[in-house]
Amino acid sequence: MITGRLFGVGVGPGDPELLTYKAVRLIRAAPVIAYVSASGRPSIARQIVAGQLQPGQREVKLTLPMHPSPEIAASAYDEGSARISMELEQGRDVVVLCEGDPLFYGSFGHLYQRLGGRYPTEIVPGVPSVMAAAAAARRPLVMYSDTIVVLPATLPEERLAERLQLVEAAAIMKLGRHLAKVRRVLEQEGLLEQAVYVERVSTPDERVVPMVDLEDTEAPYFALILVGRNHR
Amino acid sequence: MITGRLFGVGVGPGDPELLTYKAVRLIRAAPVIAYVSASGRPSIARQIVAGQLQPGQREVKLTLPMHPSPEIAASAYDEGSARISMELEQGRDVVVLCEGDPLFYGSFGHLYQRLGGRYPTEIVPGVPSVMAAAAAARRPLVMYSDTIVVLPATLPEERLAERLQLVEAAAIMKLGRHLAKVRRVLEQEGLLEQAVYVERVSTPDERVVPMVDLEDTEAPYFALILVGRNHR
Repeated sequence: MITGRLFGVGVGPGDPELLTYKAVRLIRAAPVIAYVSASGRPSIARQIVAGQLQPGQREVKLTLPMHPSPEIAASAYDEGSARISMELEQGRDVVVLCEGDPLFYGSFGHLYQRLGGRYPTEIVPGVPSVMAAAAAARRPLVMYSDTIVVLPATLPEERLAERLQLVEAAAIMKLGRHLAKVRRVLEQEGLLEQAVYVERVSTPDERVVPMVDLEDTEAPYFALILVGRNHR
Repeated sequence: MITGRLFGVGVGPGDPELLTYKAVRLIRAAPVIAYVSASGRPSIARQIVAGQLQPGQREVKLTLPMHPSPEIAASAYDEGSARISMELEQGRDVVVLCEGDPLFYGSFGHLYQRLGGRYPTEIVPGVPSVMAAAAAARRPLVMYSDTIVVLPATLPEERLAERLQLVEAAAIMKLGRHLAKVRRVLEQEGLLEQAVYVERVSTPDERVVPMVDLEDTEAPYFALILVGRNHR
């Protein structure tokens, strides 16, 4: 029996109009749609593609706690992969919806590690939130021979500082509870005036705020900071 | 008189199916399409959207020499901005086609610096070649708390090395004549076996070659190398 194919499909940062034609074609045709969300919360990826879903499509919903330990995350991905595998074994293609791009952080990498070697797999890139944030803030990310680094805010202060020091531009992701720490590092490095905060980019709730004006002490998961030394 | 609006529109890495719905809507509706290409070469961005162009659309083609000095590039962007400005002053919207994403290297940043303050501007992000290359190579770019750095191959060897040393993952862009130098740096840093070369991603001429197997000594402009220390 022929198994189904696994697709990791980027659905972009939030605006359904930032879906690609390829993503929409695959989503509409898929017998099974899978997505990961934090427990008790709706899936952002599913909301983005809601207008494309077809009657009769099966849905595999995988949930993770908000701040899972590595062990809990691993066991959730094990279980999720097993559920997706059951669909694939029945010969049904499965499209895994991925916010932004499938291989740029996010859950798909974990599922791919467990399933990619066993089933025919195709990955469809999407518009990442970093690029959408630059567009919303109207700031070139990199020009000429600039280097940009993408940093998770979860890193310790000294790691953030040393990496910011070496480059012309940065995007700081996964802010959440780390916003105050990131602000402190930017201040110490003299970068606060060149930093902009972008929340829920490309959605009706989008916020673009220069870091010098931001009074928030916590950020939602879907927020990032862009930093640029030059050309802005 | 009301001026036209300036749009910087990302058209993705090469496959027309990786265009977003927003890009296609704006391209189809635009009275004027503008794009930059190397002199004597066709515009890749125009090729990507060829199937969307409408009869009667005006086209503003800006050309740059292959390896322009900063002065020659600046004067070409000055002249190109003046030509786009003439269209905008006549009340015509202008869509500037941008390979990949408009603000991630590329020409649009230079045009935006000259025109963005004078005309209503909207920027539409696109799928960058880095994400498409990761999808083609089936390698997660970053997972967990990874940091990724995007480096232009034009940097001196010691700059490339110091920046590679600090992070878990890298994308090295603008390879061209710098491929041999980049290979040397990767060898010195012990990263050659974790590096993959991707050329003309998402097009019929796509090549994905592990760096240990690559015999080329020069690369086209549309080639990049992905490097990852973990999870691959």
